[in-house]
Amino acid sequence: MFSQHRDGEKRIVTLTTDFGLKDAYVAVMKGVILSIAPTANIVDITHMIAPQDIFEAALVVKGFYSYFPAASIHLVVVDPGVGSTRSPLVVITQKHLFVGPDNGVFTFVYDDPHLESVRIIENEEFLLPSISNTFHGRDVFAPVVGYLASGVPVDKLGRESSHYTRIDFPKVERLNDRLIGEIVYFDTFGNAITNIEKELLLQFLHDNDFYILVGDNMVKRVVASYTQGDQEELCGIFGSYDLLELSVKGENAKEMFGLKIGNRVDVYLKN
Amino acid sequence: MFSQHRDGEKRIVTLTTDFGLKDAYVAVMKGVILSIAPTANIVDITHMIAPQDIFEAALVVKGFYSYFPAASIHLVVVDPGVGSTRSPLVVITQKHLFVGPDNGVFTFVYDDPHLESVRIIENEEFLLPSISNTFHGRDVFAPVVGYLASGVPVDKLGRESSHYTRIDFPKVERLNDRLIGEIVYFDTFGNAITNIEKELLLQFLHDNDFYILVGDNMVKRVVASYTQGDQEELCGIFGSYDLLELSVKGENAKEMFGLKIGNRVDVYLKN
Amino acid sequence: MFSQHRDGEKRIVTLTTDFGLKDAYVAVMKGVILSIAPTANIVDITHMIAPQDIFEAALVVKGFYSYFPAASIHLVVVDPGVGSTRSPLVVITQKHLFVGPDNGVFTFVYDDPHLESVRIIENEEFLLPSISNTFHGRDVFAPVVGYLASGVPVDKLGRESSHYTRIDFPKVERLNDRLIGEIVYFDTFGNAITNIEKELLLQFLHDNDFYILVGDNMVKRVVASYTQGDQEELCGIFGSYDLLELSVKGENAKEMFGLKIGNRVDVYLKN
Repeated sequence: MFSQHRDGEKRIVTLTTDFGLKDAYVAVMKGVILSIAPTANIVDITHMIAPQDIFEAALVVKGFYSYFPAASIHLVVVDPGVGSTRSPLVVITQKHLFVGPDNGVFTFVYDDPHLESVRIIENEEFLLPSISNTFHGRDVFAPVVGYLASGVPVDKLGRESSHYTRIDFPKVERLNDRLIGEIVYFDTFGNAITNIEKELLLQFLHDNDFYILVGDNMVKRVVASYTQGDQEELCGIFGSYDLLELSVKGENAKEMFGLKIGNRVDVYLKN
Repeated sequence: MFSQHRDGEKRIVTLTTDFGLKDAYVAVMKGVILSIAPTANIVDITHMIAPQDIFEAALVVKGFYSYFPAASIHLVVVDPGVGSTRSPLVVITQKHLFVGPDNGVFTFVYDDPHLESVRIIENEEFLLPSISNTFHGRDVFAPVVGYLASGVPVDKLGRESSHYTRIDFPKVERLNDRLIGEIVYFDTFGNAITNIEKELLLQFLHDNDFYILVGDNMVKRVVASYTQGDQEELCGIFGSYDLLELSVKGENAKEMFGLKIGNRVDVYLKN
Repeated sequence: MFSQHRDGEKRIVTLTTDFGLKDAYVAVMKGVILSIAPTANIVDITHMIAPQDIFEAALVVKGFYSYFPAASIHLVVVDPGVGSTRSPLVVITQKHLFVGPDNGVFTFVYDDPHLESVRIIENEEFLLPSISNTFHGRDVFAPVVGYLASGVPVDKLGRESSHYTRIDFPKVERLNDRLIGEIVYFDTFGNAITNIEKELLLQFLHDNDFYILVGDNMVKRVVASYTQGDQEELCGIFGSYDLLELSVKGENAKEMFGLKIGNRVDVYLKN
């Protein structure tokens, strides 16, 4: 594990939270991490996850982590259950470490073919001396990340566990002539991301003609770039999440077509 | 001072401003700092302080700085008086350096038992050659931070001063059977932060029964975590600022109860 | 070129995008850069450029880059034409490198007296193996920046070009007794930035009396600091962009005077 990591090299620590950008909360975690691991290279992913939105956090994690170098440590604090009984976790894949609450934020990491183990953080030696019930980002997760970045091995943190929480990512229903999916997320540009995986869709279509219905709106083609499509035409496209997206050239598809999370997206094969 | 700082280690420089996130202003300061101290480790605290809100800046500084490692340099530029006669300051505590305007943003640092001295920045050698009246963040504060991060000793910057500005942090009134405080800040989650210090409140309550009135709303208990409390129940809680907060489980207390900055918060002892 | 850059020193890489702050897009680029250049010092400039607003991106770049140390690499991804035929570019000045699309975001860099050359990125060796049509930030620009930060010389990337795109920055019209300009940008504080260069204006005024008309509003003086001016007085001021700005002491000029991008700004000499 982490054979590509050389001693003395700065460990990359990424931060994904719903703490927003105006408070001291993110800064406090950075301070705790840097107090333990002064050479950590802290990289902000986002602090604008919708408050307590585990689903959105899971999707963002899915979207970015595989692009980071080996031995990166990814801290995710979207934690509506802080102070309750949910466990703090370290998730270990062949290339990466993930630290955060056991509430589903790592759902897509559990599907990574290179998943090695999941551990419950139990060893109080690696936490702050006093643990509040309000801010485990500071008292539990940040110090653990600091110690991991300093080289503490994961097996010091606690025992392995095979019971961990997943979010219910809505499943695509596959009928003979139809896929039934839905909109699960909107990005900054108003592109609607669905739960329909690129691979599944291509396999289903098998080069046959198709059309897609999103409520009353018909999508007639999957384009290759956001600059294709006619004026005000709702198009399909495969974006960065490897999921089918719905977009409009140069426009905000969400606003132009009044789309919402949960809207049904039906892919039909033409006869 | 700064005995924990080893030569060659990157100095941590934190940035707290009201410059927002869309302009070049923050970037310009980063560029000036890195031009003087290329190995400085710049950490964004927040650039979303409400425009020219010295009070909010002071509270955020109070919230984060003690978590940072020794020898960190904290730059705070919330500076409605830029170009007027307010002085630029360096504030020195046993563990940290603070750089910013003399307008109260360091009010809570002045109460730090490890405060060592406050100096007025006067030595033009450590400023940009040409000082505008519009952007001391760039022309005065950033270069001073750069030189401090490069190892310039604080006493080169200017003379000590004992006259520095504090904000009027509203005082809690203590009567025999009552504390009278107020709401001073809302965090991203809509939790209402009051001016009532945890220590003061615990000492006042002395394990006696109590209730809290916020306008017409009664708070019956102080909970240990944001996940406690009933549906739509306004609860007390001690959060990250060591101040009494008012929150609602899983909800935005500010919006749900129409709370505002300045709302009175009365803590009563029960007979 | 870059004589001030020493081997082993971390290369500074700045990021300017319109990707917003809630998605994984910025993080993906950071991951790609750090995978190729693990010691790069990534500095966020802004990710809040208005979506696909090349003009705003060009202005922000003009505003910050000269403050950065020699050998910095500035990545700008505001790219409405992603997947079309616009070329990816590296722009080389005596002190800096710029990477981004050929759509005008580097307009003001082309006017830098220290411009050395502009190259089209063509060598696929320095791109990700598979190039999507949707995200050149990840597939083209981030890897090129990573390789440049690792020391790959610019001439390996592709041939020089002398045909590159500029934005139409509105020109100031100069009459005998009048300058006719316009508002081109608002900063976070609501200050209105015009297209009238400080140098041009000072040369035109030549110490004569003047007044400025912005619609029905008269501006009677250029103040030296944002703290000058009377209550609710619209004042001229020279800000960080070396352009004439319109501001109101302690207020948001845009909102108070209902100003808009494109509003005419006429500077008259008094008889």
